[in-house]
Amino acid sequence: MATAPSVSYSMTVRLEVPASGTAVSELTTAVESSGGSVTGLDVTASGHEKLRIDVTMATTSTEHADEIVEKLRGIEGVTLGKVSDRTFLMHLGGKIEMASKHPIRNRDDLSMVYTPGVARVCMAIAENPEDARRLTIKRNSVAVVTDGSAVLGLGNIGPKAALPVMEGKAALFKRFAGIDAWPICLDTQDSDAIVEIVKAIAPGFAGINLEDISAPRCFEIEARLREALDIPVFHDDQHGTAIVVLAALTNALRVVGKNVGDVRVVMSGAGAAGTAILKLLIAAGVRHAVVADIHGVVHTGRPDLVSASPDSALRWIADNTNPEGVTGTLKEAVRGADVFIGVSAPNVLDGEDVAAMAPDSIVFALANPDPEVDPGIARKTAAVVATGRSDFPNQINNVLVFPGVFRGLLDAQSRTVNTDMMLAAARALADVVAEDELNANYIIPSVFNAKATEAVASAVKQAALAARQ
Amino acid sequence: MATAPSVSYSMTVRLEVPASGTAVSELTTAVESSGGSVTGLDVTASGHEKLRIDVTMATTSTEHADEIVEKLRGIEGVTLGKVSDRTFLMHLGGKIEMASKHPIRNRDDLSMVYTPGVARVCMAIAENPEDARRLTIKRNSVAVVTDGSAVLGLGNIGPKAALPVMEGKAALFKRFAGIDAWPICLDTQDSDAIVEIVKAIAPGFAGINLEDISAPRCFEIEARLREALDIPVFHDDQHGTAIVVLAALTNALRVVGKNVGDVRVVMSGAGAAGTAILKLLIAAGVRHAVVADIHGVVHTGRPDLVSASPDSALRWIADNTNPEGVTGTLKEAVRGADVFIGVSAPNVLDGEDVAAMAPDSIVFALANPDPEVDPGIARKTAAVVATGRSDFPNQINNVLVFPGVFRGLLDAQSRTVNTDMMLAAARALADVVAEDELNANYIIPSVFNAKATEAVASAVKQAALAARQ
Repeated sequence: MATAPSVSYSMTVRLEVPASGTAVSELTTAVESSGGSVTGLDVTASGHEKLRIDVTMATTSTEHADEIVEKLRGIEGVTLGKVSDRTFLMHLGGKIEMASKHPIRNRDDLSMVYTPGVARVCMAIAENPEDARRLTIKRNSVAVVTDGSAVLGLGNIGPKAALPVMEGKAALFKRFAGIDAWPICLDTQDSDAIVEIVKAIAPGFAGINLEDISAPRCFEIEARLREALDIPVFHDDQHGTAIVVLAALTNALRVVGKNVGDVRVVMSGAGAAGTAILKLLIAAGVRHAVVADIHGVVHTGRPDLVSASPDSALRWIADNTNPEGVTGTLKEAVRGADVFIGVSAPNVLDGEDVAAMAPDSIVFALANPDPEVDPGIARKTAAVVATGRSDFPNQINNVLVFPGVFRGLLDAQSRTVNTDMMLAAARALADVVAEDELNANYIIPSVFNAKATEAVASAVKQAALAARQ
Repeated sequence: MATAPSVSYSMTVRLEVPASGTAVSELTTAVESSGGSVTGLDVTASGHEKLRIDVTMATTSTEHADEIVEKLRGIEGVTLGKVSDRTFLMHLGGKIEMASKHPIRNRDDLSMVYTPGVARVCMAIAENPEDARRLTIKRNSVAVVTDGSAVLGLGNIGPKAALPVMEGKAALFKRFAGIDAWPICLDTQDSDAIVEIVKAIAPGFAGINLEDISAPRCFEIEARLREALDIPVFHDDQHGTAIVVLAALTNALRVVGKNVGDVRVVMSGAGAAGTAILKLLIAAGVRHAVVADIHGVVHTGRPDLVSASPDSALRWIADNTNPEGVTGTLKEAVRGADVFIGVSAPNVLDGEDVAAMAPDSIVFALANPDPEVDPGIARKTAAVVATGRSDFPNQINNVLVFPGVFRGLLDAQSRTVNTDMMLAAARALADVVAEDELNANYIIPSVFNAKATEAVASAVKQAALAARQ
């Protein structure tokens, strides 16, 4: 599977080039013959003898970019200047900021925004704490909380290294749902401490978005916080993923004309995302599910599960899936299955495995950046293929879900988030794809489809208001 | 002491008034004869028989506003509509928001701000955690942390009711110093818990501004956090106040031509602010200080101090002030003193007490909103008077200090804040008042003097860079 050049590996290279001769025309050729893609060629200074040219190009990886830079350096007469990485430039000083809604121009402004005027607002809230949802940022604020233990596919890189992801998440909350989110990156990975800290910071927020916290700790942390707090707590890696998978699966089943209660679903991966997807699929009516992890198919007789704690996530999976008692490997389990959902590791299946699935099979290979099976190969025999990647059709992307879920929760001033709300979100997202738009290459809207967040927000708000009655 | 009408008690009253007759002209008279001040009279609808008029007015208190509204209602032919409170309107939905620095217009933007591009930035920080100060919001972010235990003069009103103050503080950080601050209001008042929580959230911030945490807990919390963290921790109620008091005192002593090492200083109040002021004054050269609290003058022989813990703040005061062993009341101690500094309670002194001070006395009566002594009366015999109020000359206002202090600390990427930096800040702030501007009614710049924050920031940055060598 060849990787296309991407702006996420975009570089700008400053070069000095002779004004006469063929060097200038060789630049583009050099980049493109190496597999890069020139997105801009700006002459930033020009003289009789020399040109200064900034070449901006998309590449496929850091190594690839280095390779192209070396090739440019090799062109006769070319002198290499500064090499800038556009993604790094965008991160300088951080991607988000705090802004005041009101100008503070003079003493009058100051006396309303701050002392002495603010005192009356404080006293109103002291008398009626619920007024904090009306008179403060609590109304529209979400804390994006991580301990840096499972950041993207990068692993346990810690709270500081997680910050760029949390800032990006906050930026997306604003872009797609107008929500004010602030990153809270915790310098502890102790579950008890995390629960206590999040409980303590809750007064200033209307929702908690847990992010990139490793399994199984994430299950316990979320459950305890939901129990303790009067604002919704949502671990996006679990539930955001689960909602978008259920929406995509709903539409994929429409495409192939199969019923959710009848299909045999095989999942690869029993981590945070896998467990949450499984639970939501079961709530949506899936009756035949089998889950495999690194040790093979999960079943009640598996040695590591016989002695597992009864409230472990894996034990829950064993007790609530695989009624036929399938054993063995993932590859064995997937034979004859209608649906494969992978949230695990690259290349655990090959084309033969997909070919051995039931007719009109559905393959969601969501491991990033390298899927469980090459989607091009899977598509040869599967009816519908989805991945987590943006360079194939049917991208399963949480951005379709989390902004709308929180918008709906905040608009309803909800104190909780529950399975009904998540099912409503998935249904609404699936329905954004109209009957006449639906086909094997369009089971889920694009992340820039404005209807997605709106539809999810509206459905979640209704479900949250209904739950309150 | 009469209180002037203030926009912090500004109301807009909607009225229906007969188009003919004298009712319209009676409106302004009614407001002003009741001691209010009309700041706007807008006809928002007009007909042959009726006018709809929005009267905006400054009043002195909520009760005063109610009184004026009743008076307006009493005018013949006038019908009262909606009464809106401008300060509350300004607080609806909160005063601050999060903003993204970069637009997210398309897939390319998304892939740099978020996945997959962000992963490379995360890995760069994972390899070199110091890069977080370059590539994330950590560079310019301050947490404004409170437990709501001592909010303004309002007392222990809790974290939600404290939120409007913390939002205002964040807005001021941005307005005066371009700093991105976010309120963290804690639902605990346990010192150990607060220390653990602030330590845990520190990775995402370059500084911690503790706010409105009650004494003596604030001393211990600050000391333990300074010990534990590699970013500066600054309790503004203590040190912000101390710096601005020292700056003002420096200039007041210039006005009266006395020397800091010679003057006898009497302080009222041994809380957070009082203790910090005292310590900074001693560091600045004050040798003769006496402190009184609610039980009278603090001295080593006072019954409650004989048995006090050797590391209590009051014990420190007893051991480090009052070398002459003065005992008795505040009023007794203040006789013959050169300087009075009150950070305590209204009206603990009267005109006779001030008259009994040394010639060319200096009175800083900083209790808010009602000072320790009426500043109008104090000014009859004192050479220089300052208060915390904006409606008298010489307002001692932390806004002059905290934005610049943090700007300087952040610009120096300082890991600490120490007494040298605070002394430098006070000196710089005092020097903003030029020799030819200095007089008894202008010992400290106005809060809107742009030079103040600049001067403080620059001085603190230099001191912080020096401390690092």
